[in-house]
Amino acid sequence: MLVIGIDAGGTATRAVLATADGACVGFGVGGSGNPTSSGIPTAITGVRSAVATALGQAGAALADVAGMVVAMAGHDARGGVSDWILDPLREEGFRGTLAHESDLLAMFSSGSVAPLGYGVVCGTGASAVRVEDGRITATADGLGWLLGDRGSGFWIGREAAVAVAGELDGVGPATALTPRVLEALGGTAADARTPGREGRAVGLDRLVRAVYGQRPVQLAGLAPQVFAAAEAQDPVAERILRDAGEAIVRTLALVEERPGPLVVGGSIVSRDGAPQRRLRAHLAETFGEQPFVVVDSGAAGAAVLALRHAGIVVDEAMRVRLRDEISRAAQPTPPRIVSL
Amino acid sequence: MLVIGIDAGGTATRAVLATADGACVGFGVGGSGNPTSSGIPTAITGVRSAVATALGQAGAALADVAGMVVAMAGHDARGGVSDWILDPLREEGFRGTLAHESDLLAMFSSGSVAPLGYGVVCGTGASAVRVEDGRITATADGLGWLLGDRGSGFWIGREAAVAVAGELDGVGPATALTPRVLEALGGTAADARTPGREGRAVGLDRLVRAVYGQRPVQLAGLAPQVFAAAEAQDPVAERILRDAGEAIVRTLALVEERPGPLVVGGSIVSRDGAPQRRLRAHLAETFGEQPFVVVDSGAAGAAVLALRHAGIVVDEAMRVRLRDEISRAAQPTPPRIVSL
Repeated sequence: MLVIGIDAGGTATRAVLATADGACVGFGVGGSGNPTSSGIPTAITGVRSAVATALGQAGAALADVAGMVVAMAGHDARGGVSDWILDPLREEGFRGTLAHESDLLAMFSSGSVAPLGYGVVCGTGASAVRVEDGRITATADGLGWLLGDRGSGFWIGREAAVAVAGELDGVGPATALTPRVLEALGGTAADARTPGREGRAVGLDRLVRAVYGQRPVQLAGLAPQVFAAAEAQDPVAERILRDAGEAIVRTLALVEERPGPLVVGGSIVSRDGAPQRRLRAHLAETFGEQPFVVVDSGAAGAAVLALRHAGIVVDEAMRVRLRDEISRAAQPTPPRIVSL
Repeated sequence: MLVIGIDAGGTATRAVLATADGACVGFGVGGSGNPTSSGIPTAITGVRSAVATALGQAGAALADVAGMVVAMAGHDARGGVSDWILDPLREEGFRGTLAHESDLLAMFSSGSVAPLGYGVVCGTGASAVRVEDGRITATADGLGWLLGDRGSGFWIGREAAVAVAGELDGVGPATALTPRVLEALGGTAADARTPGREGRAVGLDRLVRAVYGQRPVQLAGLAPQVFAAAEAQDPVAERILRDAGEAIVRTLALVEERPGPLVVGGSIVSRDGAPQRRLRAHLAETFGEQPFVVVDSGAAGAAVLALRHAGIVVDEAMRVRLRDEISRAAQPTPPRIVSL
């Protein structure tokens, strides 16, 4: 028996073809699989492409697949339109069952099959979930960049842009972020001191044009500059990452109950830095000795969920085997978010 | 001799036909006159429509007009493309000179012709300027909703939406803004307590859908709810308006030098409320007895600037006459920003 777990993200889609005993026999990557962010035709192409690659590696066909899970952000908003992907798959010979699951549940399941645990995803956005018996029973934040995503890559990037604008506008302290960001925008550090129109630095006009010339969430592309400046001990960058860590811990605390493992994913908490260190310390303070697991995608978790939907009990050994086999298959890494 | 002053805003355009002694002999309103926000064809139509109405009232023609000033946000970014409006006017018989000026300078000039003074515009956005001898010599903020506009209508509306999301997500205190905002979004106060998917209140989903279903700046439409809740002494709303007032004063302080009058415009500081009271108190503390002037548009100021470009010295009596005549001609008021 074969199942497919699909981790359909806004940038890349990953498909895992798995056997009933948790072997990964095929792995494929496609483009965006999220119809909300990319439109249905693009999302269908992304999913199809990942699935075809995974099947091809095993010499299998869609007709051989008993069940499929698509894990995606905003999955339950899909409700009545869940056939956006089922209909095209049926046309290509798929006869099994299809289920939709949350991307957050897939991320958690990549890192743990514990009956109670917590997940924090902090990349461009930020949210925390409590998972009990394979279902999400509490969610915090995940409210998007205008209302929440506190501590996220967008949040950090916006804080950085505001700090640079603040220095250039005379309202905030000098920060090593200013030359870094001005150079990242194609200018020079000297733009911060060159007078421009109506008493402003030319660097400020450059910053304003760059920021409003892109989609707001692309501010997340500045987050690596903040990590680099914090490593060089810039106080403003250190403050931003400290505040981000506090914000993420506060979001996690909203869903905490009894002790359980913590699974984290997303560029801000996957790397060693102030936010991850703050999360580790918080976990130890709150629940004592508990696993802290970093995952790089929800691909293994989507396969875990697909196996469960097929009636198979997935234990920790099966999860680890899936994860390891996917990690080997997934080299080189798929595309990341585009930098500012 | 006749001149035309044009206050070309993103929502409405106002044209004032003035004589050399400061009489308003024609006044017209058109749609958006800002090519950046609305595109050049729409902006040309907005300006043409306002100008044609003003000329029609006086039985005058474009050929009778010696000079024209177009005051607009981002005017100096127009640089090489300033003929976007000159060419169409030339085709219709305009033989005079055309100058572009800042909307902030026009706002200030609606309220004062003093050789040194300050202007604060705080509506959807927020900025402060110092004006010396009819030119802007310092600018603060005006950085737009992603980087600044601290204390603006957008800033207040976003704080309100974040406060409501915070209450519904369990991370912030209860606030009277929550039932107000939920009702403004077509829901009911009970949505705050009705459980929805994955442990969230249904009101939170409603808020998220509404906020991301519109342009970000439309959050400014929530500002009136904040003023209303603050009048009813809601502590969260009072805190938001207090912080807005502090932010605006801080922006103004960045351009202050010697004592001078303060001219304020825009929906947040034109009305009696915490931000305006804070500005009045700050002016008195900083510069003692100085005029605090509230203006409702840059129309009179655009006419003042057009007269100056024609070589006429505009004194306080001429400015007041222009303003009063325009106020009478401008009833009923033009359209406002659309509410959330």
